[in-house]
Amino acid sequence: MIIVLKPEATEADAKAILEQIESVKLKPLYMPGTERIVLGALGDERILNNLNIAANPMVENVKPILSTYKQVSREMQSHDTQVKFGDVTIGGGSFAVIAGPCAIENRDQIFKSAEIVKKHGAVGLRGGAFKPRTSPYSFQGLEEEGLKLMQEASKEYGLPCVTEIVDPAHVELLEKYVDAFQVGARNMQNFKLLKAVGQSQTPTLLKRGMSATIEELLLAAEYIYNEGNHNVVICERGIRTFERATRNTLDLNAVAYIKTKSHLPVIVDPSHGTGIRELVAPMAKAAVACGADGVIVEAHYDPQVALSDGAQSLDEASFAKMMRELTPFVQAAGKVLA
Amino acid sequence: MIIVLKPEATEADAKAILEQIESVKLKPLYMPGTERIVLGALGDERILNNLNIAANPMVENVKPILSTYKQVSREMQSHDTQVKFGDVTIGGGSFAVIAGPCAIENRDQIFKSAEIVKKHGAVGLRGGAFKPRTSPYSFQGLEEEGLKLMQEASKEYGLPCVTEIVDPAHVELLEKYVDAFQVGARNMQNFKLLKAVGQSQTPTLLKRGMSATIEELLLAAEYIYNEGNHNVVICERGIRTFERATRNTLDLNAVAYIKTKSHLPVIVDPSHGTGIRELVAPMAKAAVACGADGVIVEAHYDPQVALSDGAQSLDEASFAKMMRELTPFVQAAGKVLA
Amino acid sequence: MIIVLKPEATEADAKAILEQIESVKLKPLYMPGTERIVLGALGDERILNNLNIAANPMVENVKPILSTYKQVSREMQSHDTQVKFGDVTIGGGSFAVIAGPCAIENRDQIFKSAEIVKKHGAVGLRGGAFKPRTSPYSFQGLEEEGLKLMQEASKEYGLPCVTEIVDPAHVELLEKYVDAFQVGARNMQNFKLLKAVGQSQTPTLLKRGMSATIEELLLAAEYIYNEGNHNVVICERGIRTFERATRNTLDLNAVAYIKTKSHLPVIVDPSHGTGIRELVAPMAKAAVACGADGVIVEAHYDPQVALSDGAQSLDEASFAKMMRELTPFVQAAGKVLA
Amino acid sequence: MIIVLKPEATEADAKAILEQIESVKLKPLYMPGTERIVLGALGDERILNNLNIAANPMVENVKPILSTYKQVSREMQSHDTQVKFGDVTIGGGSFAVIAGPCAIENRDQIFKSAEIVKKHGAVGLRGGAFKPRTSPYSFQGLEEEGLKLMQEASKEYGLPCVTEIVDPAHVELLEKYVDAFQVGARNMQNFKLLKAVGQSQTPTLLKRGMSATIEELLLAAEYIYNEGNHNVVICERGIRTFERATRNTLDLNAVAYIKTKSHLPVIVDPSHGTGIRELVAPMAKAAVACGADGVIVEAHYDPQVALSDGAQSLDEASFAKMMRELTPFVQAAGKVLA
Repeated sequence: MIIVLKPEATEADAKAILEQIESVKLKPLYMPGTERIVLGALGDERILNNLNIAANPMVENVKPILSTYKQVSREMQSHDTQVKFGDVTIGGGSFAVIAGPCAIENRDQIFKSAEIVKKHGAVGLRGGAFKPRTSPYSFQGLEEEGLKLMQEASKEYGLPCVTEIVDPAHVELLEKYVDAFQVGARNMQNFKLLKAVGQSQTPTLLKRGMSATIEELLLAAEYIYNEGNHNVVICERGIRTFERATRNTLDLNAVAYIKTKSHLPVIVDPSHGTGIRELVAPMAKAAVACGADGVIVEAHYDPQVALSDGAQSLDEASFAKMMRELTPFVQAAGKVLA
Repeated sequence: MIIVLKPEATEADAKAILEQIESVKLKPLYMPGTERIVLGALGDERILNNLNIAANPMVENVKPILSTYKQVSREMQSHDTQVKFGDVTIGGGSFAVIAGPCAIENRDQIFKSAEIVKKHGAVGLRGGAFKPRTSPYSFQGLEEEGLKLMQEASKEYGLPCVTEIVDPAHVELLEKYVDAFQVGARNMQNFKLLKAVGQSQTPTLLKRGMSATIEELLLAAEYIYNEGNHNVVICERGIRTFERATRNTLDLNAVAYIKTKSHLPVIVDPSHGTGIRELVAPMAKAAVACGADGVIVEAHYDPQVALSDGAQSLDEASFAKMMRELTPFVQAAGKVLA
Repeated sequence: MIIVLKPEATEADAKAILEQIESVKLKPLYMPGTERIVLGALGDERILNNLNIAANPMVENVKPILSTYKQVSREMQSHDTQVKFGDVTIGGGSFAVIAGPCAIENRDQIFKSAEIVKKHGAVGLRGGAFKPRTSPYSFQGLEEEGLKLMQEASKEYGLPCVTEIVDPAHVELLEKYVDAFQVGARNMQNFKLLKAVGQSQTPTLLKRGMSATIEELLLAAEYIYNEGNHNVVICERGIRTFERATRNTLDLNAVAYIKTKSHLPVIVDPSHGTGIRELVAPMAKAAVACGADGVIVEAHYDPQVALSDGAQSLDEASFAKMMRELTPFVQAAGKVLA
Repeated sequence: MIIVLKPEATEADAKAILEQIESVKLKPLYMPGTERIVLGALGDERILNNLNIAANPMVENVKPILSTYKQVSREMQSHDTQVKFGDVTIGGGSFAVIAGPCAIENRDQIFKSAEIVKKHGAVGLRGGAFKPRTSPYSFQGLEEEGLKLMQEASKEYGLPCVTEIVDPAHVELLEKYVDAFQVGARNMQNFKLLKAVGQSQTPTLLKRGMSATIEELLLAAEYIYNEGNHNVVICERGIRTFERATRNTLDLNAVAYIKTKSHLPVIVDPSHGTGIRELVAPMAKAAVACGADGVIVEAHYDPQVALSDGAQSLDEASFAKMMRELTPFVQAAGKVLA
């Protein structure tokens, strides 16, 4: 429920209402604006109705929040959220390109890969240290050793970095090394993990689950947001369908749809979304065209020797080409490359 | 199998080989180029291997066609096909916007709808006269009466028109009134219908089936092409997935993928692909960004009174806005609006 | 809308109401029962409400039909429909096994295949003469020649036979040779074809489309039923999902669900539903357990030489084994093998 | 790789080979049989080939494991695994019915529900204490308080109990109260959790992820097995497809398929697999018919007051009816109710 106060309402008026909300065990929200104060109340709305807040003389109007997700919805906040990732802003009028290898493999690989993506315009570095792999016999990542290497490369090339978190107990460990968490597709409904990253303030890239509906994705974001971490970036990375020509079906409808329903920034992963190197650039262009705030792509200084995802990783030439092709589309969208 | 002849090979040499191919009941293809003649042979390649065509002194080389679709593949023809729809060219460097109502309802409706789409830049008119409806109790279309009305509107506003064909026996009837056939999603594997339109020369918009793979879509195109009608335009219109927020999941991966595999033009239907008016413009922009040659959208002078698909139809204001927004993206793609 | 007349209502009373219904262009239905007459009215219910039929003194009560399908629903007819296929009854307390090759290939093949399935308990013969194939270069069937061969085998072994119909113009041709039509998955929404078979009285096996919802399937059945052909048997044959280990995902939920919603008999095709020979028997047993009225399976005297679907066809030994295993489950279901 | 030793090979011979395997950092497996010793080696098979184990005179033969999952495959162990759940055996010739409420709500509810399922033949009790809910605002379970209540009910009625584990850190906590863990669909690829339960010896019910392929499901089982916990029971609970009439699409193909590929027991959850109370019994019967070793169903003494999943929960009458109907099908399958 959203409670808009009258222009003359004071902070004390607001506080009284918030206490009333809290007294019936609902979650109170305080959202002061430039012209008037807006309050929120989350939980069982039947309880709230009994309080009869609309009758308070300082209340201008009261309206229900129709979507199942609340705090991440545009009903609650109509303007776009911007998330700081290192010194880069995601959301608003810029378009951010984050790039790097699937997994951190060794110092040489992460440095060379960081170098080429920096050179051609990436503003962030990606790389996995704890890899969730379908088979227990596949390469599981360099773990903390990988994080150290990424942090060094990140500093060397001035690129804030993001890595996947797979364990609620890893929050502090990862925060020592990286600028943002990624919650992967397989963990999108690992609610313990969502709550753990929600209790930090580290920016979090939330990837859509392989068969998650848009509503479930936004409710997963709500889990993080509701714990107090508002630095959430949604990532569309393709869904699982019957189509076999591409690794996943990139659902750009979801990007355009989420932009109408939520104030959170949305980025696209055309590498996992297609699984085919040649399709990464066209789909990155489509992402900016339908309203995305950035892309995260797999790039490797030499994809042929990559331990994972080689077929969808860009090499220097194809990454540079993508950046060149992307530029006029970013302009057409009225944005600037971050 | 593709057979490239030596530069000095004559038409008579080619003819001899074609006869050899025909003699073993394979399908011979004759593709004269500016520099040399290329021949094709379709059917069981084991039979062909026995002919030992590579040993012919006029043959430069012989290579198999790896994809299951043959004539529509880039292996057979590397340059883009362009299809004439009235005086509009689909494919090549232009981007075509075709628009109009879901169903033709009455004279007033089709005229007013044609007027507004023409005014804001559409180059073709769409409208259904024979409607394939899920329920036998839904409006089934005005049939021939509808075709007459569309033809009048088409002439009045100088817009070539396209309508859905649902019966192999309707080819001649429809050709009296329209410039192009549409084979709908539900009929994509109605092979009798594909063969019937294949035996005409009328341009045909082939819509992807709701759960058709890209390979099945291109094989459906091959059915039409193989009968002799090369004027085929592929249309991506969304696939059926678990996602329920949008009517279908528009698979733009498929557009980028097909452009690498086939020489046929590809257009996108963001109206059926999303089912939500607000998403039509963003997805039309994404379509041009990922390489599509046009879009086909539902537009109605007053969507609130539409007998079908009102929720996804654009009115004049939203159609005009889409066209304005589309323009810079068409330029960014290095194309011009048809 | 269903209109239940009072016990004392006469045929003349019924006729008066039916004329009233017809006068407003709705479809009247006359369903005399042993104790009272029931009428139906199909079409726009707002129009019907204006007639105020409930006020007629001969009317006991009037209730709307809630499902989108009407005549095939249990709301309209609560008892099970039984369909005669040759001298075999499908539906009611029996369980029918129909078997035979995917395609009719030659006299020897159809005779030998018919012989083995008859020997081990099949009551019907299947076989394709007009094959809808994904590729135009695949074997398309023996056409009329195949029908003749099947009819001979059918008579020789006393097995009524069913074959796929792919063209509305083929109704009469097929009726010369076969006892039942099959409408295939790819044509489930070929409404011209549904109407054509609906205008005959030939029993029709309607296969679920690869991505058709249960509601769409029942509405397709409604198309046939609404034209006057009430001899419709629904066939679940697997749907298209992300799973790749099996050819399709056999949706037995659909069988149990349809049995609660519709009075039509339902059979299952575990051959296409799995695509794997070893899974045909377990899924046939599961079919009877969840309420199906029969199965249709692919069986071939020598699957290794089959021109299509060899991997999912049963040979004599595996067909015999399936029949033996099936028997106790048919008894557990309180049914008898037809 | 599987290494079959000659009958005369001693334990010492085996040990020597296992050390050789370990020396190149592959995982050695020791599987003594009644007639001869079988060894396994997991990891990069190219490395293994260099050891040239086949040349060892005590080795009879060496064969690769073709499936991506190894230890859970029938290639590695051909006989069925049986898992002890309290004093109940799952797998082998018995059919186990586990039942209980979705969530433990209070003492009265779990006791009354346990009483009715015990009375009509269930051999195990289910109930959630830590509930993974899509929305942060939904009831999240009674947590440890719920576990205590379930343990009391479990003892009172002599029913071993199973509950969902959602956090790797909860292994010890849950072991104090329950007889088996359930890894839920949303956590099927939470590899940290799989490893954590793998390091215990507590029987674990592994539910298939909503869009997990069968191969991914078996690889998730392999994660648990590979850590040393061999007490794994696979659970098919429906996959996410386009069909909306049922909550999920129960994939019984998967049951029959897994029984051919893996030695692990497989049970079915027809409650989540259908989402509709009326379909639970027919699909439970289908489960036994296609080879399942048991079912887990939601039952509640009064579904109308259930805090979650009321629509799919059985009440006493419908649970009793399911058990009665199930019995002849269990017999038809040659099994006995556990």
